[in-house]
Amino acid sequence: MLARLAELIVRVGANVQPGQIVTISTELGKEPLTRAIAAAAYRAGARFVDPIYFDVHVKRARILHAAAETLDFVPDWYGARLLALGEQRGARIALSGPTAPGLLDDLDPERLGRDRLPWLKEILELIEARSTNWTVAPCPTQDWASLVHPELEDSEALGRLYEELEHVCRLDDDDPVEAWRRRSDALEAVASRLGERHFDVLHFEGPGTDLQVGLFPSARWATARFQTAAGIPHLANVPTEEVFTSPDPERTRGAVRSTKPLVLNDGTIIRGLEVRFEEGRAVRVEAESGGEVMRGRLATDVGASKLGEVALVDGEGRIGQTGTVFYDTLLDENAASHIALGDGFGFVLGEGDAERRNRSAIHIDFMIGGDEVDVTGVTAQGERVPVLRGGSWQI
Amino acid sequence: MLARLAELIVRVGANVQPGQIVTISTELGKEPLTRAIAAAAYRAGARFVDPIYFDVHVKRARILHAAAETLDFVPDWYGARLLALGEQRGARIALSGPTAPGLLDDLDPERLGRDRLPWLKEILELIEARSTNWTVAPCPTQDWASLVHPELEDSEALGRLYEELEHVCRLDDDDPVEAWRRRSDALEAVASRLGERHFDVLHFEGPGTDLQVGLFPSARWATARFQTAAGIPHLANVPTEEVFTSPDPERTRGAVRSTKPLVLNDGTIIRGLEVRFEEGRAVRVEAESGGEVMRGRLATDVGASKLGEVALVDGEGRIGQTGTVFYDTLLDENAASHIALGDGFGFVLGEGDAERRNRSAIHIDFMIGGDEVDVTGVTAQGERVPVLRGGSWQI
Repeated sequence: MLARLAELIVRVGANVQPGQIVTISTELGKEPLTRAIAAAAYRAGARFVDPIYFDVHVKRARILHAAAETLDFVPDWYGARLLALGEQRGARIALSGPTAPGLLDDLDPERLGRDRLPWLKEILELIEARSTNWTVAPCPTQDWASLVHPELEDSEALGRLYEELEHVCRLDDDDPVEAWRRRSDALEAVASRLGERHFDVLHFEGPGTDLQVGLFPSARWATARFQTAAGIPHLANVPTEEVFTSPDPERTRGAVRSTKPLVLNDGTIIRGLEVRFEEGRAVRVEAESGGEVMRGRLATDVGASKLGEVALVDGEGRIGQTGTVFYDTLLDENAASHIALGDGFGFVLGEGDAERRNRSAIHIDFMIGGDEVDVTGVTAQGERVPVLRGGSWQI
Repeated sequence: MLARLAELIVRVGANVQPGQIVTISTELGKEPLTRAIAAAAYRAGARFVDPIYFDVHVKRARILHAAAETLDFVPDWYGARLLALGEQRGARIALSGPTAPGLLDDLDPERLGRDRLPWLKEILELIEARSTNWTVAPCPTQDWASLVHPELEDSEALGRLYEELEHVCRLDDDDPVEAWRRRSDALEAVASRLGERHFDVLHFEGPGTDLQVGLFPSARWATARFQTAAGIPHLANVPTEEVFTSPDPERTRGAVRSTKPLVLNDGTIIRGLEVRFEEGRAVRVEAESGGEVMRGRLATDVGASKLGEVALVDGEGRIGQTGTVFYDTLLDENAASHIALGDGFGFVLGEGDAERRNRSAIHIDFMIGGDEVDVTGVTAQGERVPVLRGGSWQI
């Protein structure tokens, strides 16, 4: 299964081209898939495969022992490596899936909030410049399996997670490549119909949620079927089920309650997140757990408390159908409609609006949709058009 | 034991200073000591600890699948990271000890010889510039323990290796810091006496060995007690038992047989190495195993087949006393007198001679000494002075 997942990641996800350098952002505990990807990438003609294994235990040591004023320091070669990869038109693969869940839970949230690694702000520059063909894909691990299926024995839990990932990645299809082409085509068609409506506002209504997200007049709806500036197509998420755009950061208002937990890139789990927005800005952030870390992230910069993304997911995607909470943003965000605090995407906006998009060093998705959340489009003329009802497209 | 070894590496080896960035060159399988070092470095005031985990399985995938003409490619950010660390006066820690021994044994030696990672030529620049305080220290692993003690059960072998490392690192001394000060002082005294003799040639004589190594008139004998250009003392090897200098690369002649196996940085084991030198250059290289890989390394550049180092080790060092072959250059080279093919050290030579020292992208130590190998110094006037007999200093 890992070999087939690796092939899918290399061929359909990143779409590695002969002669490219390929970086793999991975973690200790993800060695088997990382190695399978390296082998698949070299077979696809990669010039070099550069895996970086992040060690969250070393991060823990830092939060425990380092001087407070050093905790946001990042050596300049971390960003330089990414920018060089962009200049050299390389490919990027990142593996999601929590490792060592809970390892940072007992640490001082304020100190923890200052160290955002393995996240790097240069990733956003690369995405914006469309210089690299890239993908994010899930990596099964025992720790993750036991987190998702605590009621099962270790080996059963891992077996179940493998089955679920095989299914949501459409590896159980006769022809996974063709299956992804069909699903991407369908999402592209929805994105295109949404764009034709030119909604001024998206209105989310459900338990604990009454949220209006203002859209730019030039907003285009996109899918994860990306293309580099040089024309290399790639699927930025495997799996992917979303259509998304970048909203007007000044026109979000109302209250929203997350419908699934979210896991930050350092493993912190945020449960029961509730956010109130006024004139675009998150003015109140509460959570059942992880609230303080979340508030720490939002204090990063001015844009960190405004929206950079709004995304819609229908009920036909395979992730939502599993009913499983994966504690992994890649999968959970593709199970439900979501918004993201932080950096926006200029490439889905017209020139003037792109200048006004949200800017931040962070980009944190959280899930706000589900069968019980209605999504309605509101036109500039005030017409209300149902978009999602009970998880089904109405347009 | 790992916590005490980590403290020794950070405090005595690299001598990490408050505010420094610390890189750790490590490998998958060395997580426990790497993490203990990170914690010790942060407690010592490090600004940032940057571990790079090398994955020899990814290297294997490269040798198997990548195009031949790409095998010597290294992304420019690998060297740039090291040079930046030097400019920023950071500290460097590297962990020795083979992992996954034999993993590369079945690969095409010619292809394998073209990929020298994790070795980087910029390391030599950093050493020469004395910009970083650094150390190389051993990391115990199960794979290593089973390689060294194949006759023992896994857990017994690991226990034995821990005991041996504890002993050779002088961690079983009441005060390891003081123990290392004493041993370094003793080696410094030998180095100083050797320097006063101004030998023109060192003559090695033993089974299979009749080798003359020409020395520069300005040659200084050094120990691993180094100091950065800015004055930070550090112990470049933990453990260390050697005194060394950089010979005249044009004046090596005769035959030499290695007295211990050597392990290249990619895990290849070279056994029974025999080399014949004429006018400084290795003109014949044979080995019981690994000979082809070794010849591949020597084809790297002109300097790769000439000597960059000659080092003397007496029989009082703890490593030689164990009688164990560790299959690890750091330990084995400190058990026996040795020579190194490749890059030399300018800092042990006067200005003119430093210009004439050997230059290469490689530096491969191999052991040629032992109780049965006599070392004799020959002065410019032809006087022969016994230096080592039966492993004991004669000067």
